[in-house]
Amino acid sequence: MKKHKIAVIVGSLRKESFNLKTAKELMAMAPESLSLELLDISGLPMFNEDLEATPPKEWVALREKIRAADGLLFATPEYNRSVPGVLKNAIDVGSRPYGENSWDGKPAAIVSVSIGAISGFGANHHLRQSLTFVNVPAMAQPEAYIGNAADLFDADGKLINDSTKDFLKSFMVAFEKWVETHVSQ
Amino acid sequence: MKKHKIAVIVGSLRKESFNLKTAKELMAMAPESLSLELLDISGLPMFNEDLEATPPKEWVALREKIRAADGLLFATPEYNRSVPGVLKNAIDVGSRPYGENSWDGKPAAIVSVSIGAISGFGANHHLRQSLTFVNVPAMAQPEAYIGNAADLFDADGKLINDSTKDFLKSFMVAFEKWVETHVSQ
Amino acid sequence: MKKHKIAVIVGSLRKESFNLKTAKELMAMAPESLSLELLDISGLPMFNEDLEATPPKEWVALREKIRAADGLLFATPEYNRSVPGVLKNAIDVGSRPYGENSWDGKPAAIVSVSIGAISGFGANHHLRQSLTFVNVPAMAQPEAYIGNAADLFDADGKLINDSTKDFLKSFMVAFEKWVETHVSQ
Amino acid sequence: MKKHKIAVIVGSLRKESFNLKTAKELMAMAPESLSLELLDISGLPMFNEDLEATPPKEWVALREKIRAADGLLFATPEYNRSVPGVLKNAIDVGSRPYGENSWDGKPAAIVSVSIGAISGFGANHHLRQSLTFVNVPAMAQPEAYIGNAADLFDADGKLINDSTKDFLKSFMVAFEKWVETHVSQ
Repeated sequence: MKKHKIAVIVGSLRKESFNLKTAKELMAMAPESLSLELLDISGLPMFNEDLEATPPKEWVALREKIRAADGLLFATPEYNRSVPGVLKNAIDVGSRPYGENSWDGKPAAIVSVSIGAISGFGANHHLRQSLTFVNVPAMAQPEAYIGNAADLFDADGKLINDSTKDFLKSFMVAFEKWVETHVSQ
Repeated sequence: MKKHKIAVIVGSLRKESFNLKTAKELMAMAPESLSLELLDISGLPMFNEDLEATPPKEWVALREKIRAADGLLFATPEYNRSVPGVLKNAIDVGSRPYGENSWDGKPAAIVSVSIGAISGFGANHHLRQSLTFVNVPAMAQPEAYIGNAADLFDADGKLINDSTKDFLKSFMVAFEKWVETHVSQ
Repeated sequence: MKKHKIAVIVGSLRKESFNLKTAKELMAMAPESLSLELLDISGLPMFNEDLEATPPKEWVALREKIRAADGLLFATPEYNRSVPGVLKNAIDVGSRPYGENSWDGKPAAIVSVSIGAISGFGANHHLRQSLTFVNVPAMAQPEAYIGNAADLFDADGKLINDSTKDFLKSFMVAFEKWVETHVSQ
Repeated sequence: MKKHKIAVIVGSLRKESFNLKTAKELMAMAPESLSLELLDISGLPMFNEDLEATPPKEWVALREKIRAADGLLFATPEYNRSVPGVLKNAIDVGSRPYGENSWDGKPAAIVSVSIGAISGFGANHHLRQSLTFVNVPAMAQPEAYIGNAADLFDADGKLINDSTKDFLKSFMVAFEKWVETHVSQ
């Protein structure tokens, strides 16, 4: 069975990030047809158009990895009611240079994870607005808001909440269908 | 006359940035009671909560400069229908560590500048959503959307469009009043 | 002591609306300097610029009541991740005819109430974007998100959750200060 | 050739609405496989959950018409930096009663038209946020922002700007493909 390659992008750099933990759970429960791999965005120099003449090697590497993917899975916290700067910078770097948007046309899904009740709503929807511009069709339903995250994982970083686990499984099934709908096979 | 110190924050790192040019025009036309100074956000390491134990000196310096300001003036382009990653990262760094939000209570105004017609609308309002969370009262009217920026400046980076110049002057007068309303004197 | 008149605007038409119940609690706990009154938005014909030549009497009445207020207090549910149509229509009607925006300059605060965990975040911030345009300075902090509302009220519609009650009291104290800051006395 | 039925929803009630004029142009230039029909949203009572026991006939009729459609085409102005109340109310009515969302799964495209330069950006993206919740996949690119609309039409309401005409044609070609991708045939 052909595997669709999915780049997994985590919006937090914390080692014990609940978004990273959630991403790892999603990778473990991915359907057969999807092959998920973490995309490291931690070392990217800030986007600055002046550098495009000789772009930093980290930008070039990120763009290549995005292009090699068939789809995208974002797991993001909310920082100050929006997308973390580090994730937004990755979106910006991947969208350039002008006319060479690496994200173009790749189907995506978004999970927002937070320790509070609001569950990353602000980040989730600000990210959707950016994805519209870089021509990434983002799955509508199910939306995935994972709140009160500190209660959902054990000391080893494993997801121990069964209803969250079931929800994330159904989320990945829907995402598999979304990818198949959008990727020419 | 007492001068209110205003930190000017530009969302683009480009040398020839139209936002930087606009910021310089605003600094030149500032009313007597306001003292404007550029706040450099270019060299900030990406926010990562794990680093707070021994925070990068660039973070500490930024936070001190924000705290020393009485008000804030943002000039931002729109990248992918939102705030540039570099500016969002500065917001994130300034809002932390937890419980020590440097932005707290400082009155602000926003100018969004772009070479297109949309005039940075997406960046302007995503920034407002973040400012709500960091408790920064952002001036409502006049909103400042400067579009088609490439036509407004000459080869030396000087603003040559008279109606834009008049608008920005009235904008600064309104901002002066906004600052006075919010700063205890 | 001079009373500032506050128009209270509820975004739901349901008789047993948790937003209405919350609004009534806020009215009961209002500080001495604020006089709160419900503004009925239920019977407004849909905004249509063609009708401005001879505007519906309901539009005229709403505009007069807004103008008579010193400040605004919104309590809104989230419908489909945004402001209910009925509340948005009231904003639209109050903002016109062109050049006669009734909302102009009146300080506001927003409470969003929902039975889910997300707590009306989408409505809260979409409303803030509209308020920017009609020149209404909306209080930044504290933001007020009241989630899981069905658990907070008793059968008689009274708020029985003490921490919510305490929070709303502190919210009204902050709002009182916000009104005083913005209303010329 | 099988025709996909597209419901066209206009966010302005003005007789001479530029959005209505644009919608009519889109209907005239629709590709063979799409059959476009205007959906009247002008006479809908405001959504109020209390009325669902015996819903107004206008609600029932709207819901039936939405269900009969294969796809959705929105043309909307921006009122106060967001969706007009009349359009948001139609979204709300169509999304209910609880568990019977009429919009569910129908592919959509959005055109925002305004007489100013901002081109309805605020309405365009607030609408997208609502469409996410009602599970409507909204086409990402091309986004359609039609600004300075008063200059684009003649006295008879015909679109006379050739580049706008060409753009809208390519927009409809992309929308046709979007509908085919999402509708099971």
